[in-house]
Amino acid sequence: MAAWGELLAGVRGVLLDISGVLYDGGEGGGEPIAGSVEAVARLKRSPLKVRFCTNESQKSRGDLVGLLRRLGFDISEGEVTAPAPATCLILKERGLRPHLLVHDGVRSEFDQIDTSNPNCVVIADAGESFSYHNMNKAFQVLMELENPVLLSLGKGRYYKETSGLLLDVGPYMKALEYACGIEAEVVGKPSPEFFKSALQEMGVEAHQAVMIGDDIVGDVGGAQRCGMRALQVRTGKYRPSDEHHPEVKADGYVDNLAEAVDLLLQHTDK
Amino acid sequence: MAAWGELLAGVRGVLLDISGVLYDGGEGGGEPIAGSVEAVARLKRSPLKVRFCTNESQKSRGDLVGLLRRLGFDISEGEVTAPAPATCLILKERGLRPHLLVHDGVRSEFDQIDTSNPNCVVIADAGESFSYHNMNKAFQVLMELENPVLLSLGKGRYYKETSGLLLDVGPYMKALEYACGIEAEVVGKPSPEFFKSALQEMGVEAHQAVMIGDDIVGDVGGAQRCGMRALQVRTGKYRPSDEHHPEVKADGYVDNLAEAVDLLLQHTDK
Repeated sequence: MAAWGELLAGVRGVLLDISGVLYDGGEGGGEPIAGSVEAVARLKRSPLKVRFCTNESQKSRGDLVGLLRRLGFDISEGEVTAPAPATCLILKERGLRPHLLVHDGVRSEFDQIDTSNPNCVVIADAGESFSYHNMNKAFQVLMELENPVLLSLGKGRYYKETSGLLLDVGPYMKALEYACGIEAEVVGKPSPEFFKSALQEMGVEAHQAVMIGDDIVGDVGGAQRCGMRALQVRTGKYRPSDEHHPEVKADGYVDNLAEAVDLLLQHTDK
Repeated sequence: MAAWGELLAGVRGVLLDISGVLYDGGEGGGEPIAGSVEAVARLKRSPLKVRFCTNESQKSRGDLVGLLRRLGFDISEGEVTAPAPATCLILKERGLRPHLLVHDGVRSEFDQIDTSNPNCVVIADAGESFSYHNMNKAFQVLMELENPVLLSLGKGRYYKETSGLLLDVGPYMKALEYACGIEAEVVGKPSPEFFKSALQEMGVEAHQAVMIGDDIVGDVGGAQRCGMRALQVRTGKYRPSDEHHPEVKADGYVDNLAEAVDLLLQHTDK
Protein backbone atom coordinates (compact mmCIF):
# COMPACT_ATOMS: atom_id res chain seq x y z
CA MET A 1 0.00 0.00 0.00
CA ALA A 2 3.10 2.19 0.36
CA ALA A 3 3.62 5.49 2.01
CA TRP A 4 0.57 6.53 3.99
CA GLY A 5 2.38 9.68 5.11
CA GLU A 6 2.67 10.87 1.54
CA LEU A 7 -0.80 9.71 0.68
CA LEU A 8 -2.48 11.59 3.51
CA ALA A 9 -0.29 14.71 3.44
CA GLY A 10 -2.24 17.93 3.83
CA VAL A 11 -5.56 16.32 4.76
CA ARG A 12 -7.67 18.75 6.81
CA GLY A 13 -11.14 17.29 6.52
CA VAL A 14 -12.76 13.85 6.43
CA LEU A 15 -16.06 12.91 4.77
CA LEU A 16 -17.55 9.73 6.21
CA ASP A 17 -20.08 7.53 4.53
CA ILE A 18 -22.52 6.14 7.11
CA SER A 19 -24.07 2.79 6.09
CA GLY A 20 -21.40 0.10 5.87
CA VAL A 21 -18.78 2.36 7.50
CA LEU A 22 -20.36 3.39 10.81
CA TYR A 23 -22.96 0.65 11.02
CA ASP A 24 -24.75 -2.15 9.17
CA GLY A 25 -28.51 -1.60 9.03
CA GLY A 26 -30.91 -4.44 9.77
CA GLU A 27 -33.78 -5.67 11.88
CA GLY A 28 -34.22 -3.51 14.97
CA GLY A 29 -32.06 -0.75 13.48
CA GLY A 30 -28.79 -2.52 12.91
CA GLU A 31 -25.45 -2.68 14.69
CA PRO A 32 -22.30 -0.57 14.81
CA ILE A 33 -19.27 -1.88 12.93
CA ALA A 34 -16.61 -2.89 15.45
CA GLY A 35 -14.44 0.07 16.43
CA SER A 36 -16.45 2.68 14.52
CA VAL A 37 -18.08 4.39 17.52
CA GLU A 38 -14.65 5.04 19.04
CA ALA A 39 -13.14 5.95 15.69
CA VAL A 40 -15.70 8.74 15.13
CA ALA A 41 -15.11 10.01 18.68
CA ARG A 42 -11.34 10.09 18.14
CA LEU A 43 -11.71 11.92 14.82
CA LYS A 44 -13.90 14.54 16.46
CA ARG A 45 -11.32 15.14 19.19
CA SER A 46 -8.60 15.59 16.55
CA PRO A 47 -7.80 18.78 14.63
CA LEU A 48 -9.46 17.29 11.52
CA LYS A 49 -12.84 18.52 10.36
CA VAL A 50 -15.48 15.79 10.05
CA ARG A 51 -18.71 15.59 8.09
CA PHE A 52 -21.05 12.72 7.26
CA CYS A 53 -22.02 12.26 3.61
CA THR A 54 -24.71 9.65 3.04
CA ASN A 55 -27.05 8.44 0.32
CA GLU A 56 -29.44 7.13 3.00
CA SER A 57 -32.87 7.76 1.56
CA GLN A 58 -35.11 5.39 3.54
CA LYS A 59 -35.03 7.48 6.68
CA SER A 60 -35.31 11.18 7.38
CA ARG A 61 -32.11 12.82 8.53
CA GLY A 62 -33.61 13.13 12.02
CA ASP A 63 -34.47 9.44 12.25
CA LEU A 64 -31.06 8.39 10.95
CA VAL A 65 -29.23 10.55 13.47
CA GLY A 66 -31.52 9.30 16.26
CA LEU A 67 -30.68 5.71 15.36
CA LEU A 68 -26.94 6.39 15.23
CA ARG A 69 -27.00 8.16 18.57
CA ARG A 70 -28.77 5.17 20.12
CA LEU A 71 -25.97 3.00 18.70
CA GLY A 72 -23.48 5.22 20.54
CA PHE A 73 -22.28 7.60 17.82
CA ASP A 74 -21.50 11.27 18.48
CA ILE A 75 -23.40 12.81 15.56
CA SER A 76 -25.96 15.59 15.07
CA GLU A 77 -28.34 16.44 12.21
CA GLY A 78 -26.37 19.52 11.20
CA GLU A 79 -23.31 17.40 10.45
CA VAL A 80 -25.06 15.22 7.84
CA THR A 81 -25.28 15.85 4.09
CA ALA A 82 -28.16 13.72 2.75
CA PRO A 83 -30.02 13.58 -0.56
CA ALA A 84 -33.61 14.24 0.59
CA PRO A 85 -32.98 17.82 1.80
CA ALA A 86 -30.88 18.47 -1.32
CA THR A 87 -33.76 17.21 -3.47
CA CYS A 88 -36.25 19.53 -1.76
CA LEU A 89 -34.07 22.51 -2.68
CA ILE A 90 -34.04 21.41 -6.34
CA LEU A 91 -37.82 20.85 -6.40
CA LYS A 92 -38.45 24.33 -5.02
CA GLU A 93 -35.95 26.03 -7.34
CA ARG A 94 -37.44 24.42 -10.43
CA GLY A 95 -41.12 24.52 -9.48
CA LEU A 96 -41.37 20.74 -9.59
CA ARG A 97 -44.26 18.87 -7.95
CA PRO A 98 -43.15 15.29 -7.35
CA HIS A 99 -44.90 11.98 -7.40
CA LEU A 100 -42.97 10.28 -4.58
CA LEU A 101 -41.78 6.68 -4.88
CA VAL A 102 -40.06 6.63 -1.49
CA HIS A 103 -40.00 4.78 1.81
CA ASP A 104 -42.56 5.95 4.37
CA GLY A 105 -39.64 6.69 6.69
CA VAL A 106 -38.38 9.57 4.53
CA ARG A 107 -41.77 11.02 3.51
CA SER A 108 -41.67 13.65 6.27
CA GLU A 109 -38.70 15.34 4.54
CA PHE A 110 -41.14 16.30 1.77
CA ASP A 111 -43.84 17.72 4.06
CA GLN A 112 -43.35 21.25 2.74
CA ILE A 113 -43.42 20.18 -0.93
CA ASP A 114 -46.51 20.47 -3.15
CA THR A 115 -47.24 16.99 -4.52
CA SER A 116 -50.54 17.78 -6.25
CA ASN A 117 -50.82 17.27 -10.01
CA PRO A 118 -47.26 15.92 -10.29
CA ASN A 119 -44.88 17.04 -13.03
CA CYS A 120 -41.95 14.82 -12.05
CA VAL A 121 -41.12 11.61 -10.18
CA VAL A 122 -38.76 11.37 -7.20
CA ILE A 123 -37.42 7.90 -6.52
CA ALA A 124 -35.48 6.86 -3.42
CA ASP A 125 -34.57 3.61 -1.71
CA ALA A 126 -38.15 2.52 -1.12
CA GLY A 127 -37.48 -1.01 0.15
CA GLU A 128 -40.66 -3.07 0.28
CA SER A 129 -42.51 -0.17 -1.34
CA PHE A 130 -40.82 -1.11 -4.64
CA SER A 131 -43.91 -3.17 -5.46
CA TYR A 132 -45.06 -3.77 -9.04
CA HIS A 133 -48.06 -1.57 -8.33
CA ASN A 134 -45.94 1.38 -7.13
CA MET A 135 -43.42 1.02 -9.95
CA ASN A 136 -46.27 1.07 -12.49
CA LYS A 137 -47.75 4.16 -10.90
CA ALA A 138 -44.43 6.04 -11.18
CA PHE A 139 -44.00 4.76 -14.75
CA GLN A 140 -47.49 5.93 -15.73
CA VAL A 141 -46.90 9.42 -14.26
CA LEU A 142 -43.69 9.74 -16.30
CA MET A 143 -45.33 8.48 -19.50
CA GLU A 144 -48.05 11.11 -19.24
CA LEU A 145 -45.56 14.00 -19.03
CA GLU A 146 -44.41 15.78 -22.15
CA ASN A 147 -40.95 16.28 -20.65
CA PRO A 148 -40.59 13.50 -18.09
CA VAL A 149 -38.26 14.39 -15.18
CA LEU A 150 -36.99 11.64 -12.89
CA LEU A 151 -34.94 12.60 -9.82
CA SER A 152 -33.18 9.72 -8.08
CA LEU A 153 -31.80 9.96 -4.54
CA GLY A 154 -28.53 8.19 -5.25
CA LYS A 155 -27.99 5.38 -7.74
CA GLY A 156 -26.45 2.72 -5.51
CA ARG A 157 -26.63 -0.84 -6.78
CA TYR A 158 -27.12 -2.54 -3.42
CA TYR A 159 -26.26 -2.24 0.21
CA LYS A 160 -25.57 -4.66 3.01
CA GLU A 161 -27.86 -5.23 5.94
CA THR A 162 -27.18 -7.69 8.70
CA SER A 163 -29.38 -10.15 6.75
CA GLY A 164 -27.39 -9.85 3.51
CA LEU A 165 -27.21 -7.78 0.32
CA LEU A 166 -30.33 -5.82 -0.63
CA LEU A 167 -31.22 -3.88 -3.78
CA ASP A 168 -30.75 -0.13 -3.50
CA VAL A 169 -32.49 2.58 -5.54
CA GLY A 170 -30.14 2.35 -8.55
CA PRO A 171 -31.63 -0.79 -10.15
CA TYR A 172 -35.14 0.69 -9.88
CA MET A 173 -33.93 4.00 -11.32
CA LYS A 174 -32.49 2.03 -14.25
CA ALA A 175 -35.79 0.19 -14.67
CA LEU A 176 -37.75 3.45 -15.02
CA GLU A 177 -35.08 4.95 -17.30
CA TYR A 178 -35.37 1.97 -19.64
CA ALA A 179 -39.17 1.79 -19.48
CA CYS A 180 -39.56 5.48 -20.39
CA GLY A 181 -36.48 5.98 -22.56
CA ILE A 182 -35.18 8.77 -20.31
CA GLU A 183 -32.18 9.54 -18.11
CA ALA A 184 -32.60 10.25 -14.41
CA GLU A 185 -30.95 13.15 -12.58
CA VAL A 186 -29.09 11.74 -9.59
CA VAL A 187 -29.12 13.70 -6.33
CA GLY A 188 -26.53 12.27 -3.93
CA LYS A 189 -23.24 10.47 -4.36
CA PRO A 190 -21.58 10.19 -6.88
CA SER A 191 -22.99 13.48 -8.19
CA PRO A 192 -20.21 16.12 -8.01
CA GLU A 193 -22.69 18.80 -6.83
CA PHE A 194 -23.48 16.66 -3.81
CA PHE A 195 -19.85 16.15 -2.80
CA LYS A 196 -19.17 19.85 -3.35
CA SER A 197 -22.00 20.89 -1.07
CA ALA A 198 -20.66 18.55 1.64
CA LEU A 199 -17.16 20.06 1.25
CA GLN A 200 -18.57 23.57 1.39
CA GLU A 201 -20.53 22.76 4.54
CA MET A 202 -17.32 21.38 6.07
CA GLY A 203 -15.30 24.42 4.93
CA VAL A 204 -12.50 22.37 3.35
CA GLU A 205 -11.20 22.31 -0.24
CA ALA A 206 -11.40 19.09 -2.25
CA HIS A 207 -7.62 18.61 -2.34
CA GLN A 208 -7.54 18.84 1.49
CA ALA A 209 -10.27 16.25 2.00
CA VAL A 210 -10.48 12.47 2.13
CA MET A 211 -13.64 10.42 1.65
CA ILE A 212 -14.02 7.14 3.52
CA GLY A 213 -16.63 4.77 2.15
CA ASP A 214 -17.54 1.15 1.41
CA ASP A 215 -18.76 1.79 -2.17
CA ILE A 216 -15.97 1.66 -4.73
CA VAL A 217 -17.99 3.55 -7.36
CA GLY A 218 -20.32 5.86 -5.43
CA ASP A 219 -17.94 6.84 -2.62
CA VAL A 220 -14.42 6.31 -3.93
CA GLY A 221 -14.86 7.03 -7.64
CA GLY A 222 -17.24 9.93 -7.04
CA ALA A 223 -14.98 11.64 -4.51
CA GLN A 224 -11.89 11.19 -6.67
CA ARG A 225 -13.65 12.79 -9.64
CA CYS A 226 -14.17 15.85 -7.41
CA GLY A 227 -10.45 16.07 -6.63
CA MET A 228 -10.61 14.36 -3.24
CA ARG A 229 -8.62 11.41 -2.03
CA ALA A 230 -10.65 8.35 -1.10
CA LEU A 231 -10.18 5.24 1.03
CA GLN A 232 -12.31 2.12 0.78
CA VAL A 233 -13.09 0.20 3.97
CA ARG A 234 -13.37 -3.58 3.87
CA THR A 235 -16.73 -3.48 5.68
CA GLY A 236 -20.34 -3.02 4.56
CA LYS A 237 -20.89 -3.84 0.91
CA TYR A 238 -17.13 -4.16 0.21
CA ARG A 239 -16.24 -7.20 -1.87
CA PRO A 240 -12.66 -8.38 -2.55
CA SER A 241 -13.21 -7.88 -6.30
CA ASP A 242 -13.56 -4.13 -5.62
CA GLU A 243 -9.77 -3.97 -5.28
CA HIS A 244 -9.52 -4.97 -8.96
CA HIS A 245 -12.32 -2.73 -10.21
CA PRO A 246 -11.81 -2.04 -13.93
CA GLU A 247 -12.33 1.73 -13.59
CA VAL A 248 -11.81 2.87 -10.01
CA LYS A 249 -8.77 2.48 -7.78
CA ALA A 250 -8.96 3.77 -4.21
CA ASP A 251 -6.03 5.77 -2.85
CA GLY A 252 -5.94 3.17 -0.11
CA TYR A 253 -7.80 0.15 1.27
CA VAL A 254 -8.26 -0.29 5.03
CA ASP A 255 -9.90 -3.01 7.08
CA ASN A 256 -12.40 -0.68 8.70
CA LEU A 257 -12.98 2.88 9.87
CA ALA A 258 -10.88 2.29 12.99
CA GLU A 259 -7.83 1.54 10.85
CA ALA A 260 -8.51 4.55 8.64
CA VAL A 261 -8.65 6.81 11.68
CA ASP A 262 -5.45 5.29 13.11
CA LEU A 263 -3.66 6.15 9.88
CA LEU A 264 -5.18 9.61 9.64
CA LEU A 265 -4.26 10.54 13.19
CA GLN A 266 -0.78 9.09 12.82
CA HIS A 267 0.00 10.87 9.56
CA THR A 268 -1.89 14.16 9.69
CA ASP A 269 -1.88 15.07 13.37
CA LYS A 270 1.04 17.48 13.14
CA MET B 1 -47.12 5.40 -47.53
CA ALA B 2 -46.58 4.81 -51.26
CA ALA B 3 -46.76 1.66 -53.28
CA TRP B 4 -48.02 -1.23 -51.17
CA GLY B 5 -47.79 -3.53 -54.17
CA GLU B 6 -44.07 -3.01 -54.40
CA LEU B 7 -43.65 -3.14 -50.65
CA LEU B 8 -45.41 -6.47 -50.27
CA ALA B 9 -44.12 -8.13 -53.43
CA GLY B 10 -43.10 -11.75 -52.92
CA VAL B 11 -44.50 -12.12 -49.42
CA ARG B 12 -45.29 -15.78 -48.73
CA GLY B 13 -45.55 -15.87 -44.95
CA VAL B 14 -46.81 -13.67 -42.14
CA LEU B 15 -45.60 -13.59 -38.54
CA LEU B 16 -48.17 -12.14 -36.17
CA ASP B 17 -47.46 -10.67 -32.77
CA ILE B 18 -50.31 -11.51 -30.38
CA SER B 19 -50.72 -8.98 -27.54
CA GLY B 20 -51.73 -5.59 -28.92
CA VAL B 21 -52.33 -7.03 -32.41
CA LEU B 22 -54.87 -9.81 -31.84
CA TYR B 23 -56.14 -8.68 -28.44
CA ASP B 24 -55.54 -6.37 -25.49
CA GLY B 25 -55.08 -8.29 -22.23
CA GLY B 26 -56.85 -7.21 -19.06
CA GLU B 27 -59.19 -8.19 -16.28
CA GLY B 28 -61.09 -11.37 -17.13
CA GLY B 29 -58.66 -12.18 -19.95
CA GLY B 30 -58.99 -9.15 -22.19
CA GLU B 31 -60.77 -8.39 -25.43
CA PRO B 32 -60.09 -8.88 -29.12
CA ILE B 33 -59.00 -5.83 -31.12
CA ALA B 34 -61.81 -4.91 -33.52
CA GLY B 35 -61.54 -6.85 -36.78
CA SER B 36 -58.66 -9.09 -35.67
CA VAL B 37 -60.64 -12.33 -35.27
CA GLU B 38 -61.87 -12.05 -38.85
CA ALA B 39 -58.46 -10.90 -40.10
CA VAL B 40 -56.75 -14.03 -38.75
CA ALA B 41 -59.47 -16.22 -40.28
CA ARG B 42 -59.07 -14.54 -43.68
CA LEU B 43 -55.28 -14.91 -43.57
CA LYS B 44 -55.62 -18.59 -42.80
CA ARG B 45 -57.95 -19.12 -45.78
CA SER B 46 -55.43 -17.35 -48.05
CA PRO B 47 -52.39 -18.94 -49.71
CA LEU B 48 -50.13 -17.16 -47.20
CA LYS B 49 -48.46 -19.09 -44.40
CA VAL B 50 -49.23 -17.79 -40.93
CA ARG B 51 -47.42 -18.16 -37.62
CA PHE B 52 -47.78 -16.43 -34.25
CA CYS B 53 -44.62 -15.03 -32.68
CA THR B 54 -45.10 -13.74 -29.15
CA ASN B 55 -43.05 -12.65 -26.15
CA GLU B 56 -45.95 -13.55 -23.85
CA SER B 57 -44.28 -14.91 -20.75
CA GLN B 58 -47.00 -14.64 -18.07
CA LYS B 59 -49.02 -17.56 -19.41
CA SER B 60 -48.11 -21.00 -20.66
CA ARG B 61 -48.59 -21.49 -24.40
CA GLY B 62 -51.58 -23.72 -23.64
CA ASP B 63 -53.29 -21.11 -21.48
CA LEU B 64 -52.63 -18.36 -24.02
CA VAL B 65 -54.09 -20.38 -26.87
CA GLY B 66 -57.08 -21.36 -24.70
CA LEU B 67 -57.76 -17.69 -23.96
CA LEU B 68 -57.47 -16.68 -27.61
CA ARG B 69 -59.78 -19.47 -28.72
CA ARG B 70 -62.37 -18.33 -26.18
CA LEU B 71 -62.06 -14.84 -27.70
CA GLY B 72 -62.89 -16.37 -31.09
CA PHE B 73 -59.47 -16.79 -32.70
CA ASP B 74 -58.59 -19.76 -34.90
CA ILE B 75 -55.25 -20.69 -33.34
CA SER B 76 -53.56 -23.81 -32.00
CA GLU B 77 -50.55 -24.38 -29.75
CA GLY B 78 -48.41 -25.74 -32.57
CA GLU B 79 -48.71 -22.44 -34.43
CA VAL B 80 -47.17 -20.35 -31.65
CA THR B 81 -43.50 -19.49 -31.15
CA ALA B 82 -43.08 -18.38 -27.52
CA PRO B 83 -40.05 -17.75 -25.29
CA ALA B 84 -40.73 -20.21 -22.44
CA PRO B 85 -40.39 -23.39 -24.55
CA ALA B 86 -37.34 -21.84 -26.27
CA THR B 87 -35.81 -21.15 -22.86
CA CYS B 88 -36.34 -24.75 -21.72
CA LEU B 89 -34.37 -25.97 -24.72
CA ILE B 90 -31.48 -23.64 -23.82
CA LEU B 91 -31.54 -24.70 -20.15
CA LYS B 92 -31.35 -28.37 -21.10
CA GLU B 93 -28.63 -27.85 -23.71
CA ARG B 94 -26.40 -25.95 -21.29
CA GLY B 95 -27.13 -27.91 -18.11
CA LEU B 96 -28.56 -24.82 -16.40
CA ARG B 97 -30.74 -25.10 -13.29
CA PRO B 98 -32.76 -21.91 -13.01
CA HIS B 99 -34.03 -19.85 -10.14
CA LEU B 100 -37.36 -18.76 -11.65
CA LEU B 101 -38.59 -15.17 -11.31
CA VAL B 102 -41.76 -15.74 -13.33
CA HIS B 103 -45.53 -15.46 -13.13
CA ASP B 104 -47.32 -18.46 -11.63
CA GLY B 105 -49.21 -18.77 -14.91
CA VAL B 106 -46.09 -19.80 -16.85
CA ARG B 107 -44.47 -21.98 -14.19
CA SER B 108 -45.91 -25.19 -15.68
CA GLU B 109 -43.73 -24.70 -18.79
CA PHE B 110 -40.73 -25.42 -16.54
CA ASP B 111 -42.18 -28.59 -14.95
CA GLN B 112 -39.54 -30.80 -16.57
CA ILE B 113 -36.65 -28.54 -15.55
CA ASP B 114 -34.40 -29.18 -12.53
CA THR B 115 -34.54 -26.08 -10.33
CA SER B 116 -32.53 -27.43 -7.39
CA ASN B 117 -29.29 -25.66 -6.39
CA PRO B 118 -29.73 -22.98 -9.09
CA ASN B 119 -26.82 -21.89 -11.31
CA CYS B 120 -28.72 -19.22 -13.26
CA VAL B 121 -31.76 -16.94 -13.05
CA VAL B 122 -34.65 -16.93 -15.53
CA ILE B 123 -36.74 -13.76 -15.51
CA ALA B 124 -40.04 -13.32 -17.32
CA ASP B 125 -42.96 -10.91 -17.15
CA ALA B 126 -43.85 -11.71 -13.55
CA GLY B 127 -46.45 -8.97 -12.98
CA GLU B 128 -47.33 -8.62 -9.31
CA SER B 129 -44.62 -11.17 -8.51
CA PHE B 130 -42.04 -8.43 -9.21
CA SER B 131 -42.02 -7.68 -5.50
CA TYR B 132 -38.98 -6.26 -3.70
CA HIS B 133 -38.65 -9.59 -1.92
CA ASN B 134 -38.59 -11.63 -5.14
CA MET B 135 -36.24 -9.20 -6.90
CA ASN B 136 -33.82 -9.44 -3.97
CA LYS B 137 -33.96 -13.22 -4.04
CA ALA B 138 -33.03 -13.31 -7.75
CA PHE B 139 -30.32 -10.70 -7.15
CA GLN B 140 -28.83 -12.72 -4.28
CA VAL B 141 -28.77 -15.92 -6.36
CA LEU B 142 -26.88 -14.09 -9.11
CA MET B 143 -24.41 -12.48 -6.69
CA GLU B 144 -23.50 -15.88 -5.27
CA LEU B 145 -22.59 -17.33 -8.68
CA GLU B 146 -19.06 -17.14 -9.97
CA ASN B 147 -20.32 -16.70 -13.53
CA PRO B 148 -23.80 -15.23 -13.15
CA VAL B 149 -26.15 -16.14 -16.02
CA LEU B 150 -29.41 -14.23 -16.45
CA LEU B 151 -31.88 -15.38 -19.11
CA SER B 152 -34.70 -12.93 -19.87
CA LEU B 153 -37.87 -13.94 -21.72
CA GLY B 154 -38.05 -10.87 -23.92
CA LYS B 155 -36.95 -7.37 -22.98
CA GLY B 156 -40.12 -5.39 -23.68
CA ARG B 157 -40.39 -2.02 -21.95
CA TYR B 158 -44.14 -2.12 -21.35
CA TYR B 159 -47.38 -3.42 -22.77
CA LYS B 160 -50.92 -2.22 -22.87
CA GLU B 161 -53.76 -3.81 -20.95
CA THR B 162 -57.32 -2.56 -21.06
CA SER B 163 -56.49 -0.69 -17.81
CA GLY B 164 -53.47 1.13 -19.27
CA LEU B 165 -49.72 0.73 -19.78
CA LEU B 166 -47.94 -1.79 -17.55
CA LEU B 167 -44.25 -2.54 -17.03
CA ASP B 168 -42.97 -5.56 -18.94
CA VAL B 169 -39.96 -7.73 -18.10
CA GLY B 170 -37.38 -5.42 -19.73
CA PRO B 171 -37.16 -2.82 -16.93
CA TYR B 172 -36.69 -5.58 -14.34
CA MET B 173 -34.06 -7.27 -16.50
CA LYS B 174 -32.23 -3.91 -16.64
CA ALA B 175 -32.52 -3.58 -12.87
CA LEU B 176 -30.79 -6.94 -12.29
CA GLU B 177 -28.20 -6.22 -14.98
CA TYR B 178 -27.26 -2.98 -13.25
CA ALA B 179 -27.36 -4.44 -9.73
CA CYS B 180 -25.02 -7.30 -10.66
CA GLY B 181 -22.93 -5.61 -13.36
CA ILE B 182 -23.86 -8.25 -15.94
CA GLU B 183 -25.66 -8.51 -19.28
CA ALA B 184 -28.73 -10.70 -19.69
CA GLU B 185 -29.25 -13.12 -22.56
CA VAL B 186 -32.61 -12.37 -24.16
CA VAL B 187 -34.79 -15.26 -25.34
CA GLY B 188 -37.62 -13.93 -27.49
CA LYS B 189 -38.07 -10.95 -29.77
CA PRO B 190 -35.94 -9.05 -30.81
CA SER B 191 -33.35 -11.84 -30.59
CA PRO B 192 -32.48 -12.97 -34.15
CA GLU B 193 -32.40 -16.65 -33.07
CA PHE B 194 -36.00 -16.38 -31.97
CA PHE B 195 -37.25 -14.87 -35.24
CA LYS B 196 -35.23 -17.42 -37.18
CA SER B 197 -36.81 -20.32 -35.31
CA ALA B 198 -40.27 -18.88 -36.05
CA LEU B 199 -39.41 -18.57 -39.76
CA GLN B 200 -38.04 -22.10 -39.83
CA GLU B 201 -41.19 -23.47 -38.19
CA MET B 202 -43.23 -21.59 -40.82
CA GLY B 203 -41.00 -22.85 -43.65
CA VAL B 204 -40.52 -19.41 -45.21
CA GLU B 205 -37.31 -17.42 -45.86
CA ALA B 206 -36.80 -14.07 -44.15
CA HIS B 207 -37.03 -12.10 -47.40
CA GLN B 208 -40.41 -13.74 -48.11
CA ALA B 209 -41.88 -12.91 -44.71
CA VAL B 210 -43.53 -9.91 -43.09
CA MET B 211 -43.84 -9.33 -39.35
CA ILE B 212 -46.89 -7.49 -38.01
CA GLY B 213 -46.56 -6.06 -34.52
CA ASP B 214 -47.32 -3.15 -32.22
CA ASP B 215 -43.77 -2.79 -30.83
CA ILE B 216 -41.56 -0.57 -32.98
CA VAL B 217 -38.34 -1.92 -31.48
CA GLY B 218 -39.09 -5.52 -30.49
CA ASP B 219 -41.29 -6.46 -33.44
CA VAL B 220 -40.43 -4.08 -36.26
CA GLY B 221 -36.76 -3.41 -35.61
CA GLY B 222 -36.04 -7.00 -34.64
CA ALA B 223 -37.71 -8.49 -37.72
CA GLN B 224 -36.01 -6.02 -40.05
CA ARG B 225 -32.59 -6.91 -38.64
CA CYS B 226 -33.35 -10.52 -39.64
CA GLY B 227 -34.07 -9.49 -43.23
CA MET B 228 -37.87 -9.46 -42.92
CA ARG B 229 -40.24 -6.67 -43.79
CA ALA B 230 -42.30 -5.34 -40.90
CA LEU B 231 -45.53 -3.41 -40.45
CA GLN B 232 -46.52 -1.60 -37.27
CA VAL B 233 -50.19 -1.56 -36.27
CA ARG B 234 -51.65 1.50 -34.57
CA THR B 235 -53.15 -0.66 -31.80
CA GLY B 236 -51.85 -2.07 -28.50
CA LYS B 237 -48.85 -0.19 -27.15
CA TYR B 238 -48.46 1.87 -30.38
CA ARG B 239 -47.83 5.56 -29.74
CA PRO B 240 -47.80 8.25 -32.46
CA SER B 241 -44.17 9.07 -31.62
CA ASP B 242 -43.23 5.56 -32.83
CA GLU B 243 -43.61 6.85 -36.41
CA HIS B 244 -40.68 9.21 -35.74
CA HIS B 245 -38.54 6.71 -33.86
CA PRO B 246 -34.87 7.77 -34.06
CA GLU B 247 -33.61 4.31 -35.06
CA VAL B 248 -36.41 2.20 -36.49
CA LYS B 249 -38.70 2.88 -39.42
CA ALA B 250 -41.40 0.35 -40.25
CA ASP B 251 -41.90 -0.65 -43.88
CA GLY B 252 -45.48 0.48 -43.38
CA TYR B 253 -47.91 1.67 -40.72
CA VAL B 254 -51.50 0.39 -40.64
CA ASP B 255 -54.43 1.18 -38.38
CA ASN B 256 -54.87 -2.41 -37.25
CA LEU B 257 -54.45 -6.04 -38.24
CA ALA B 258 -57.59 -5.90 -40.38
CA GLU B 259 -56.06 -3.19 -42.58
CA ALA B 260 -52.78 -5.09 -42.79
CA VAL B 261 -54.60 -8.21 -43.95
CA ASP B 262 -56.65 -6.20 -46.49
CA LEU B 263 -53.41 -4.93 -48.00
CA LEU B 264 -51.69 -8.32 -47.90
CA LEU B 265 -54.59 -10.11 -49.60
CA GLN B 266 -54.95 -7.35 -52.16
CA HIS B 267 -51.27 -7.21 -53.08
CA THR B 268 -49.97 -10.74 -52.64
CA ASP B 269 -52.95 -12.92 -53.56
CA LYS B 270 -51.79 -13.64 -57.09
